[in-house]
Amino acid sequence: MTHDLLMCGAVVTPSGILDDGWVAVTGEHISAVGQGPRPDAKRVIDAGTDWVIPGIVDGQTHATSYRGLPGFAETSQSALAGGITTMVDMPYDNPDPLNTMARLEAKVAAVEAHSHCDVALYGTVAPGQGTDEMAPLAKAGVCAFKLSLIESHPVRFPRIPADEIMSILSASVPTGLPVGLHNEDQEIVQAMIARHREAGQITPEFHEPSRPEVAELTATAQFMELGAATGAHVHIVHLSSSRGFEIVAEHAARGVRATGELCVHYLHFDAARDVDRLGARMKVSPPIRSGAIEGLWEACEAGRVTFISSDHSSWPIDNKLVPSIFDAGAGIPGLETLGPSFYTDAAARYGAREAVMRLAETLCRAPADFFGIAPRKGAIVPGADADLAVLKRGPAPFDASTTRDGLNWSPYDGETFDVSVSTTVRRGEIAWDGTEILSRAGSGAFIARH
Amino acid sequence: MTHDLLMCGAVVTPSGILDDGWVAVTGEHISAVGQGPRPDAKRVIDAGTDWVIPGIVDGQTHATSYRGLPGFAETSQSALAGGITTMVDMPYDNPDPLNTMARLEAKVAAVEAHSHCDVALYGTVAPGQGTDEMAPLAKAGVCAFKLSLIESHPVRFPRIPADEIMSILSASVPTGLPVGLHNEDQEIVQAMIARHREAGQITPEFHEPSRPEVAELTATAQFMELGAATGAHVHIVHLSSSRGFEIVAEHAARGVRATGELCVHYLHFDAARDVDRLGARMKVSPPIRSGAIEGLWEACEAGRVTFISSDHSSWPIDNKLVPSIFDAGAGIPGLETLGPSFYTDAAARYGAREAVMRLAETLCRAPADFFGIAPRKGAIVPGADADLAVLKRGPAPFDASTTRDGLNWSPYDGETFDVSVSTTVRRGEIAWDGTEILSRAGSGAFIARH
Amino acid sequence: MTHDLLMCGAVVTPSGILDDGWVAVTGEHISAVGQGPRPDAKRVIDAGTDWVIPGIVDGQTHATSYRGLPGFAETSQSALAGGITTMVDMPYDNPDPLNTMARLEAKVAAVEAHSHCDVALYGTVAPGQGTDEMAPLAKAGVCAFKLSLIESHPVRFPRIPADEIMSILSASVPTGLPVGLHNEDQEIVQAMIARHREAGQITPEFHEPSRPEVAELTATAQFMELGAATGAHVHIVHLSSSRGFEIVAEHAARGVRATGELCVHYLHFDAARDVDRLGARMKVSPPIRSGAIEGLWEACEAGRVTFISSDHSSWPIDNKLVPSIFDAGAGIPGLETLGPSFYTDAAARYGAREAVMRLAETLCRAPADFFGIAPRKGAIVPGADADLAVLKRGPAPFDASTTRDGLNWSPYDGETFDVSVSTTVRRGEIAWDGTEILSRAGSGAFIARH
Amino acid sequence: MTHDLLMCGAVVTPSGILDDGWVAVTGEHISAVGQGPRPDAKRVIDAGTDWVIPGIVDGQTHATSYRGLPGFAETSQSALAGGITTMVDMPYDNPDPLNTMARLEAKVAAVEAHSHCDVALYGTVAPGQGTDEMAPLAKAGVCAFKLSLIESHPVRFPRIPADEIMSILSASVPTGLPVGLHNEDQEIVQAMIARHREAGQITPEFHEPSRPEVAELTATAQFMELGAATGAHVHIVHLSSSRGFEIVAEHAARGVRATGELCVHYLHFDAARDVDRLGARMKVSPPIRSGAIEGLWEACEAGRVTFISSDHSSWPIDNKLVPSIFDAGAGIPGLETLGPSFYTDAAARYGAREAVMRLAETLCRAPADFFGIAPRKGAIVPGADADLAVLKRGPAPFDASTTRDGLNWSPYDGETFDVSVSTTVRRGEIAWDGTEILSRAGSGAFIARH
Repeated sequence: MTHDLLMCGAVVTPSGILDDGWVAVTGEHISAVGQGPRPDAKRVIDAGTDWVIPGIVDGQTHATSYRGLPGFAETSQSALAGGITTMVDMPYDNPDPLNTMARLEAKVAAVEAHSHCDVALYGTVAPGQGTDEMAPLAKAGVCAFKLSLIESHPVRFPRIPADEIMSILSASVPTGLPVGLHNEDQEIVQAMIARHREAGQITPEFHEPSRPEVAELTATAQFMELGAATGAHVHIVHLSSSRGFEIVAEHAARGVRATGELCVHYLHFDAARDVDRLGARMKVSPPIRSGAIEGLWEACEAGRVTFISSDHSSWPIDNKLVPSIFDAGAGIPGLETLGPSFYTDAAARYGAREAVMRLAETLCRAPADFFGIAPRKGAIVPGADADLAVLKRGPAPFDASTTRDGLNWSPYDGETFDVSVSTTVRRGEIAWDGTEILSRAGSGAFIARH
Repeated sequence: MTHDLLMCGAVVTPSGILDDGWVAVTGEHISAVGQGPRPDAKRVIDAGTDWVIPGIVDGQTHATSYRGLPGFAETSQSALAGGITTMVDMPYDNPDPLNTMARLEAKVAAVEAHSHCDVALYGTVAPGQGTDEMAPLAKAGVCAFKLSLIESHPVRFPRIPADEIMSILSASVPTGLPVGLHNEDQEIVQAMIARHREAGQITPEFHEPSRPEVAELTATAQFMELGAATGAHVHIVHLSSSRGFEIVAEHAARGVRATGELCVHYLHFDAARDVDRLGARMKVSPPIRSGAIEGLWEACEAGRVTFISSDHSSWPIDNKLVPSIFDAGAGIPGLETLGPSFYTDAAARYGAREAVMRLAETLCRAPADFFGIAPRKGAIVPGADADLAVLKRGPAPFDASTTRDGLNWSPYDGETFDVSVSTTVRRGEIAWDGTEILSRAGSGAFIARH
Repeated sequence: MTHDLLMCGAVVTPSGILDDGWVAVTGEHISAVGQGPRPDAKRVIDAGTDWVIPGIVDGQTHATSYRGLPGFAETSQSALAGGITTMVDMPYDNPDPLNTMARLEAKVAAVEAHSHCDVALYGTVAPGQGTDEMAPLAKAGVCAFKLSLIESHPVRFPRIPADEIMSILSASVPTGLPVGLHNEDQEIVQAMIARHREAGQITPEFHEPSRPEVAELTATAQFMELGAATGAHVHIVHLSSSRGFEIVAEHAARGVRATGELCVHYLHFDAARDVDRLGARMKVSPPIRSGAIEGLWEACEAGRVTFISSDHSSWPIDNKLVPSIFDAGAGIPGLETLGPSFYTDAAARYGAREAVMRLAETLCRAPADFFGIAPRKGAIVPGADADLAVLKRGPAPFDASTTRDGLNWSPYDGETFDVSVSTTVRRGEIAWDGTEILSRAGSGAFIARH
Repeated sequence: MTHDLLMCGAVVTPSGILDDGWVAVTGEHISAVGQGPRPDAKRVIDAGTDWVIPGIVDGQTHATSYRGLPGFAETSQSALAGGITTMVDMPYDNPDPLNTMARLEAKVAAVEAHSHCDVALYGTVAPGQGTDEMAPLAKAGVCAFKLSLIESHPVRFPRIPADEIMSILSASVPTGLPVGLHNEDQEIVQAMIARHREAGQITPEFHEPSRPEVAELTATAQFMELGAATGAHVHIVHLSSSRGFEIVAEHAARGVRATGELCVHYLHFDAARDVDRLGARMKVSPPIRSGAIEGLWEACEAGRVTFISSDHSSWPIDNKLVPSIFDAGAGIPGLETLGPSFYTDAAARYGAREAVMRLAETLCRAPADFFGIAPRKGAIVPGADADLAVLKRGPAPFDASTTRDGLNWSPYDGETFDVSVSTTVRRGEIAWDGTEILSRAGSGAFIARH
C-alpha cells in the first residue's frame, strides 16, 4: 500500500530513538513506524538526523487572555510554530471563565472557527456557583477543572473559598477529573505587596519577595489536605521550587491522588541572575525564584514532576511596561520556546539523546496521559493521531519579533537554542514548514477527554 | 533536722513509684524524697497506699472568660480541688486579650490579688498590632504566644491573617517561645455552619459536622509550613483526631519545631455515643469527634502528644442552653475532672500503676517542661516547688454541683472516677483538704518562664 | 517495498496493544510496526485477535543439566514451543560450570551446533579459583555471574565462601555485570534436612520446612551487605516470598544496586494446597511456600520484582521418584509453561489485556534490559530482532507428554491455560508453528551482552 | 531518724542534677534523696561540687579470662576503683563457658567467695548442646544469653552454627531474655587474616583490615533476620561503626526486638590515628576503626546505642606482645577507664553537666534496665541499692601501673581524664576511698535478673 506521508529521521518513540527511522501517515493517523527500508508514500519529508518527535501537548495555555475567543487564531499558530499540536486551554480567560455548558459550547465553537491546532479544555467553577455544571462539563469532555486560592481578577480569575473548594473536590470524584490549583495564599501575597508598595519598593526585584515560597507551600499543603479528605485528584498547576514537589510527593505516598506540574521558565530563568536584565518581562506568578533550578531538575529526576507546560499567557508587552511591578501583568508568551528551551537546558545536563527522550516523555506523553487524551495524543505509535514535529538540530537564535502569537516579545529574545522547529504535522496535515503556517483557521479540533 | 511537712504514700516520681514513700517539704520546696523510714516533720500527712503525685500543670485554662480578671478567685480554687497547682492561662479572655505589657501587668496583679494557685501566662498579638510587644512580654515571663486562624470573638478571640502569623512567628524566634494555634479554617467552618443553619440543622449533633476534621487539618498544615519557613516553634493547642498528630509528627521529622497538644475530653467523650445525652454540654471547638478515641490513645503511645490539658472555659450553663447549637458557647469546665478523667481512662487501658505514671508525665512533667517552668514545677524531685496532690483510690462519683469553679455543671456530672483529689499542697501549703479550700486569695503566684 | 514477513494480530508493544496491528519483518529484524492498512510482504501470518508478543526472554534456564552440552538441542526446541526465543543459560550445569574462557568457548560452540533458539550465558567462579577470568568472560559477552551460598553439588553447583563472594563482587564492579545469588543458608538447610531425616520425615511435605524462609532471608541480607560494601550489582535469582523482595527494596532505597527475580512457579503453586497432589514434582529450591502467592503479586505490583523466569531444569522424572524427598532432584521443567502460566494467572487477576501487557514487560522487556541484550531483544519495536510469538487465545489443556524438552513431565500436567503458543518467530524465521519445530539445530545464536 | 550514711555533692539523678544534694543510705539501700538541709547520719561524705553518680553497671566484662574463677577477686576490685558496682560477666571465659546449671552454680559460688562488687551473669549454649538448659538458667537468674558467629577458641568461645542459633533464639522467647551476639563473619575474617599472613602483613595496622566492617554487618544482618523469624530479642554486643547501629535500628523499626551495644573504646580510639602508638595494646575484636568516632556519637544522639560497656578482658600484656598481630590476644582492660573515658570525651562534646547526665543514663540506668536488674541497680532513687560513686572533678592523669586488675597495663596509660573516682559505695558499704579497696572478698553478690 501507499501511505499519504512518510516522515523520516531520528524518530523518538516511547521505547527509544529509531535512527534512520520513519513514521508512515495515512489520513489523520500514524499507520506504521519503522526503521530502515521505507514504504511508499505520496509525500516524504526526510529530516535526516534531526529529531522527529510527537507533537507537543502543552498542558497549560491561556489562549484567549488578550483578544478573547478569536485569540485562538494567533495563539494556535504560535503553538504550531513551537511544535505544539495540542494546547490545553485554561478556563480563566477573557471574556469569561469556562464554568457553564454554554461557555464550553462557545469555546468549542471558537476552536472550530479559529484554531489551527487541537485544543483540550479545562473547566472551572465560579465562586458561589455550586457544582451542578461539573458533571455535564465532564461528560462533554473537559479534561480537568481549575481553581485558585488567590484572586487575580474578580471575574476572570477569582479566588475560591476553602469550603467551596471542598464541595468542588467532592463533586469531582465521580467525574474522575483532576482539579488543578493556582497555589498562592491570598492573604500573604496581598499583605506582602502592600508592604512593598508602602515602602516604595515597586521595581521588578520586589516581585519575588512579594510572593514568597511559603505562600505557595501553605496553599499547596491546604489543597493536599482537602484532597485527602475528599478523595479527589488534586493537582498543583505550577510549583516554583523543589519543596512544593516534596509536599505533593509526601501526600501521594500516603495515598492522596496528588500531582504537581512545572512550567518550563522555572527551569530556565533565575530571579537573582536575570531580573535586572528582564524586569517585568519575566514576571509570572508564582514568581521565578533565585537558586531554584537545580532543585527543580532533581525533582524531575525523582519522578515528582508530573509534566512540564508553558503557561503561555497572551499579554501584550504594554501590559508589562508600567511604573510599578505590581501593576504589570503576570504571565509570559511561551508556545514557541517551550520545546526549544526544555531541550536546550536538558541537553546541557544530559546530552542530546536523553534530552529528546525526556522531552517526548515530559512534554508529550505525560500531559496527554494526565488529561485523558492518550494514546491518541502524545506518542509516536501506530494508531495515534499523526501529530509530529521535527526538531532541527543546530544553533537557533530566537528572535521574538518573528513569533506568530501576535505579541512579539519574550524573555527568551536573543537567546540561542540548540534546536528549532522546522516542521509540524497536525493530524496528518503539514501545518508548519519552519517558515509559514500552512493550515487554515478552524482546522484545529476540540479534543475531548475520554 | 525537722521538715515542715511530710507527705507519705505511693509517691510518683519520674523514675518510678515509691511504695511506702515520702516527700519532705521545707518552706516552699521539696527538700527530700525517700522510701521507708521517715524523717521528722512538724506535720505528717499519710496517704497510705494512695498516690502522691506532683501538682498538675494544666497547660490550657481560660480562667477569666466569665467574670473577667476577678475570675481567678473561683477558677483557681477549682484548680486546687482538681489537684492542679499551676494553671497556664490563655490570653484570649475577658476583658481583653493579653497583648501588651500593660495587660500583662494587670493580669499579674489579678493573679496576686485573687489566685489560690500558681499561674503561668500566655501572651498574644492582636490583628494589626505588629510584633513590638512580643520581646518585652517574653522578657517579662509569658510562657508562650497564642494565635487563632478562626475568629471566635472580634476582640477577645480574633482571627490573625496568615501574613501577620508569619511576622509573629518570625518575631518569636529570638524569644525561643512556642507559638500556639487554635487550628480551624474559618472559611470552612463558617460556611458549614451557614449551611446547617439554612437547612434548619441546629441541634447538637450538627456541631461536629459543622467543624469537620479537614478544617483542623488544613489550618494545621498551613501553620506547619509557616513554622518551617520561619524557624519558629509551632504548637497546635488542640487536635481532635490522630491525623492531626501525624501531620505534626511528619513536620517534626523533617526538622520543624512542631508540637501538638491534646485535651482530656477528646480522650473521654465520643460524639456519636454521647451527643444525645449531653447536647451542648459537650460543645467544644474543635468538636469532640466520633470514633476518634482509639486513634488518640495510639497517638499518645507513639509519643506524638506533647502533653494533655483541660482547656477549661469558665462559661455558665446558661450560655449553653440556647435553641441553636451554633449560638451555644464553646468550651466546658474541666479543672476538677482533668486528672480523674485521665487517670480513670488510662487505668482501664493500662492498669493503675502505669496510668498514674502516665498522668505524672503527661499532665505534670511534660507541660512544665514545654512552658519553661521545669524543674521548678511538674515533678516530685528534691529542690522543686512543693506542689503535690493526693489521688485517693476508690470509686468517686462526680457531682458537678459541688465544684468550686462557680459554674457547677459539667459533662462529666454523674460519672464515677477511680480516684478523687483528697489533698493539694501548693508551694508547701496545704491548700485543699478534700473538702475545703484552705488557702487565701492571692496566695497563688505568677510563674515566669525561665 | 516488500517485507519478508508480516505478522498480523493484536500486537503487544511497550506503548500499548495495537488491535488490527502488524509487524513487518525484513531479514532478521523488525522493519516496521503498524496498525490498519498492511504493507506488502512475501508471507503473511494473520493471528486475528490473538496476541502477537515479543519472543520471551527466559532469564533463568538450566539447559544442559541432564544431557550436557548437547542438551541445548531439546531444551531450545522446548523454548521455542513456549514462545521463548532467548534463553539465559545458567552456569551451574553439566558437565562443568562455566567459569573459564575455554568453557565459554565450548558452550558457545554447543549453542551454535545444537540450539534452535538464541542463548545468552551466565558465567561463574569456582571456589578458590580467583577472579582473573571474570574480566575476559565479561568482555566475551557473558551477561551476568552467578554464585551460591549453598552447595547443591560440589563441582557443578558449589557453595562460595563469603570472603570469596566479596572478592568476586569487587571484581565484578569494573565489568558492570550483575552477580546473581542462589540464596539459601547452607547451615540452616543442611541441619533442617538432617533433623527431618532423623525424624523419618522424608515425604514431600517436609521439603518446605526443611528449607525455611529464614534460610533465604539471612542469605539475602548477607549478600545485600556484601553488595553495599563493594558497590557491586547484587541480584537474587529467586525469592519465594514477599519478605525477600522487601529486603532487596530496602537496600535499593539506600543506594545498593540490588535487584530480585521471581520464578513463575512461585506465583502458581502453593505448598499447602498442592503438595499432596504433586509431591516431588513440585520440588524446587528454594521451595514453593504455603500462602505466599498473594504477597508475591503485591511485590510485582509494588515494582519490586525485576523480572520473572522459568528456572527450567532438565531433570528426568526418574530423578524425582525416589523414596525420600531429600534425595529427589530439585528443579522442574518450565519452558513451555512459563508464558501460559503467567498469562493465565495474571488474566484471572487483571483481565486479559493487562495480563498480556504485564507479560511483555516482565517476561520480555525487563529481562532483556537486565541482561544487557535490549533493545535488540525483548520488545516489538522497529530495529529489534524479529523475535515474535503468537499467543492463541482460548482454553488450552496442557499435556506434558507432548513437550519438546525430552523430559515429558510437568507439575502443570493436566491444567488448562487461557492461551497456547501457536507460532514462534526467531530472528525472522518461523521456528515453531504450533505443532512442529521448523528450525534447524544450530540456527540459534549466542547473544553477547553489549 | 538517723541514716547510716549521707553522701553529699552534686547528685546525678534521672531527673537532673541536685547541686548541694545528698543521698541518705540506710542499710544497703537508698532511703532518701534530697537537696539543701541535710538529715542526720552516722557518717557523712561530703563531695562538695563533685559528681555523685549511681554505681556504674558495666554490661560486658570478662572477669575470669586470665585467672579463671578466682579472677573475680582482682577484677572486682578494679571495677570498684572504676566506680563500677555491678559487672555483667560474659559466659565465654576460663575455665568453661557458662552453659549449664552446674557451671552457673560454680560461678555464683566464685562470686560469693571472691567478688568485691555485685555481678550479674550471662549464660550461653555450647555447639551441639541443645537448648534444654536455657529455661533453668533463666529461672536461676542469668540476665541474657550470648552467642558468637565466629570462633575465638573452640571451647571457651566457639562459633554457633546458624541453625543452632535459630533453635536457641526460639528457646529464648519464653524466657524473655535477650540473646547477645559477637557479630563477625568467620569466613570473611579467617580468609582475610590468612591473606595478610601470606603477604607477611602481620604488624598491628593490619588488624583493622583483617576484620573489615562488612564482616560485622553481614553477621549483624543475618542475626537480625533470625530474630525476626523467631521473635527473639536479638542484641549485638558490640558494633564498631554507625552503619551497624543503622541496621539494628531499621529492624527495630519494623518490629524486631533488636538492640545494639557500644564499647567505650570505640568512642575514644581511632585506628589510623593511634595504631602506631598503641599497636597490639588497642587490639579488640571487632577492631577499632578509622574515622568512626563521629558517626558513633551521632548514633548515640539518635538513640540507637542501647548502652555502653567496657568489654574488659583480663589478659596480661604478655599475651599482646608477640611478633604477629594475629597471634596477639584480643581484648583490653577497661574497668577503671570506662567511666572517666566516657565522661572526658562527652564533656568535650557536650560540657560537663550534660556529660555526667549521659553517663548516668548510658553507663548506669540503661544497662540495668536492659539486664533486668533495675530499679534495684542503675539510678539514684529511693529504694534502690545504695550503689554510688563520686567523680572527683579536675585533671586526673591515668597511670596503668596502679590499677587493681592484676594486669597493670592499658591503652589509656598516660592520658589525663577530667575526673577520677574518689569513692565507691556498694550496697551501703564504702568499698573504695580513692586509694584503697576497703571491702572484703565475697562481699559482692550475684544479682539475678528479676
